[in-house]
Amino acid sequence: MRILVSDVINLPQDNSKEAPEGRVDIGIEDGRISFIREHAPDEDQAACSPETWDQVIEGRGRLALPGLVNAHTHLGMTLLRGYGDDLPLMVWLQEKMWPIEDQLTAEDVYWASLLAIGEMLRGGVTTCGDMYFHMEATARAVAEAGIRASLSRGVQGVSGSGLRGLDEAVRFCREWEAGADGRITTMLGPHAPFTCPPEFLHKVVDWAGYLDVPIHIHVAETVAEVSQIRQDYGMTPLEMLGANGVLDLPVMAVHCVHMQETDFKLAADKDVRIVHCPSSNMKLGSGIMPLPEMLAEELAIGLGTDSAASNNKLDLWEEMRLASLIHKATAQDATVVPASAALEMATFGGAKALFLEGVGRLLPGWVGDLILVDMEGLHWQPLSNPQASAVYSGQRTDVSLVMVDGRIVYEEGELLTIDEDRVRYHVHKSAARLGL
Amino acid sequence: MRILVSDVINLPQDNSKEAPEGRVDIGIEDGRISFIREHAPDEDQAACSPETWDQVIEGRGRLALPGLVNAHTHLGMTLLRGYGDDLPLMVWLQEKMWPIEDQLTAEDVYWASLLAIGEMLRGGVTTCGDMYFHMEATARAVAEAGIRASLSRGVQGVSGSGLRGLDEAVRFCREWEAGADGRITTMLGPHAPFTCPPEFLHKVVDWAGYLDVPIHIHVAETVAEVSQIRQDYGMTPLEMLGANGVLDLPVMAVHCVHMQETDFKLAADKDVRIVHCPSSNMKLGSGIMPLPEMLAEELAIGLGTDSAASNNKLDLWEEMRLASLIHKATAQDATVVPASAALEMATFGGAKALFLEGVGRLLPGWVGDLILVDMEGLHWQPLSNPQASAVYSGQRTDVSLVMVDGRIVYEEGELLTIDEDRVRYHVHKSAARLGL
Repeated sequence: MRILVSDVINLPQDNSKEAPEGRVDIGIEDGRISFIREHAPDEDQAACSPETWDQVIEGRGRLALPGLVNAHTHLGMTLLRGYGDDLPLMVWLQEKMWPIEDQLTAEDVYWASLLAIGEMLRGGVTTCGDMYFHMEATARAVAEAGIRASLSRGVQGVSGSGLRGLDEAVRFCREWEAGADGRITTMLGPHAPFTCPPEFLHKVVDWAGYLDVPIHIHVAETVAEVSQIRQDYGMTPLEMLGANGVLDLPVMAVHCVHMQETDFKLAADKDVRIVHCPSSNMKLGSGIMPLPEMLAEELAIGLGTDSAASNNKLDLWEEMRLASLIHKATAQDATVVPASAALEMATFGGAKALFLEGVGRLLPGWVGDLILVDMEGLHWQPLSNPQASAVYSGQRTDVSLVMVDGRIVYEEGELLTIDEDRVRYHVHKSAARLGL
Repeated sequence: MRILVSDVINLPQDNSKEAPEGRVDIGIEDGRISFIREHAPDEDQAACSPETWDQVIEGRGRLALPGLVNAHTHLGMTLLRGYGDDLPLMVWLQEKMWPIEDQLTAEDVYWASLLAIGEMLRGGVTTCGDMYFHMEATARAVAEAGIRASLSRGVQGVSGSGLRGLDEAVRFCREWEAGADGRITTMLGPHAPFTCPPEFLHKVVDWAGYLDVPIHIHVAETVAEVSQIRQDYGMTPLEMLGANGVLDLPVMAVHCVHMQETDFKLAADKDVRIVHCPSSNMKLGSGIMPLPEMLAEELAIGLGTDSAASNNKLDLWEEMRLASLIHKATAQDATVVPASAALEMATFGGAKALFLEGVGRLLPGWVGDLILVDMEGLHWQPLSNPQASAVYSGQRTDVSLVMVDGRIVYEEGELLTIDEDRVRYHVHKSAARLGL
């Protein structure tokens, strides 16, 4: 399949000489970007004839961006959206989330995952990092819907079911690594330092090393967690992971709200990848991650929505804007986390956090994960700087076309791989059964 | 003009018995809501015949909300959207905003105002509170576009032009109060305590009392302002206004980021109305207003976007969500500023801040300012609580119909009172002339 995306606006990609800025044409062949070159005037567009290209997309001055990366979410939880808003964290978890989660079937998780993927694709998210259970159901949804995903079956070591969960997680990695034509990669997902004691972590580390997959884990999300780990082990959550060999593997640490100076150094030293989830951390009252300090350490940082139960959107545009705005507020400095940094986290930063190669930029040889953004809306006018406007004025409904792996999955209001009405029907059926 | 809005979902309105919750029909006659009653089954809809109603809007289960209120903005500044993002506050003001503002003509402000109003109407904003110059141009745009607005010609007492500005402001109030069939009200707009010395404030107070209009003023936006006022007058900015008689008038105080405990008491005592502008305060690095503490004092609080130059959207959905989320984060308490409080600020709170009567709720006898919200989008599913979902999942593009004063001004993607392409043309012309 050979697709030409003609006459779109390209932003600078990491100062690369391989992709000019401004009006460009982008060739995509066999799922990869084959070239990005200055837009050829119409009379020179012989190259655009149907004989040369299977499809020509007329970009008409739209902004081309790498597909957005939602580095941390729990797709199966999308069924629990809006179930228990504005409650204290422990009440929310113990009285709302956990009792319902016990009743979720693989079928529920499958439809919830399709719902989530549909919402994400519509908003230009082409890659996600997921941790949950019934992960094979989510993998099926990912395979069918055409999104890219790094999937991990979440495991905990506090209850008797821990080892059974780990067995499942290992089996999942073996079965699905490089699945769906390579769009699916896998990780092991030990839930968090406070739910995974050392002996359990050691088993996870062994398996991850043997399977050669990274670790996806929540770290230092709340003050309570940090206190508990300090009390139990006399160290910070990240140090606790380090002390148990986890940081000797590739690790993606999510939330990191209550990390401290020494943790930043440790993370930098061990090349720990970070995921910042501003909406969720705010909505659950967890706090605000010290992003500017972590950027100063040059950590690799992506953005995540967390689940729809604690957000309640799966909207990377919102996270991008928040990731810029809240830190300007707390630092009382408007120059902190500029638009370029927010956009970088939402694309390449997230891909790096998920340990994906060749994802997150528009460059020749990189994957054909690309979105087109309509800048004609009143809220973009007047337009002087497309990059800053994308972050501060843009919204997900401006996305007009979404391509993953060289395949168009969303165009002008229509999802091409998901039957929305069927998803609505099944999600409502599940919600009714669960009394949501 | 008699309009029936049939079969929409109504939220509880301040525990009123006059308007049932759930599926309702809403009658609007001569610009006012005439009734809200339980939705009549279709066979009983004789009342919906064309003879009885000039127009019947089939609501099809959409959510009806009072039109949103953007209590503080500077419409004319919309031309400066994206001009100087990520700069330190004083550089932004002195090197970007002020030099360009000196060159803005009434024509620029007129088109910028139409651009802003178009953006706001599309997102369900039916009322705004504005402060800027060339205010007669903005008033013309308001009159034509059909939005409701409280307008004030901003004045400063620091330069020689202060009194000339005040003359203009007074003339504006006389000319436009109750203009555009009552949709326009006026205020006097002394810019801020640090730009309006006492002798100038006294003149403003005299005129406001004589004209019987409220005061619209920025207060305690930055730490620098608070320090300066402390140094110059030995008190807080709000106390300085109190000491000069300003608080003996109806006052809407905007930003209030750095107010302290004693200010809350003073504001409560003097019934000062507050406007919270979360995006702008964050983006400019001003800080975060102590909203939970101010809500605890039962102050009347609305929401504002501030100008598109410091936001860069005029999106009340964004402000509503932020107003809930950021305070949960700073308080580290998920129960703080629940969805109901955010929605209240975005509607009735804003109308109260602007001293408007009969605006901001859906109740019989109140103005026909109403929006319909499509809850079919994937991001609303599953849907258990429309109120919380509006705040946490909703987005402005979900607004499908907007009515102001009983007149439909936006429906299904189309502005009925504004020619968008013409606005784009003129805005781009102005931007090009100004080198934006």
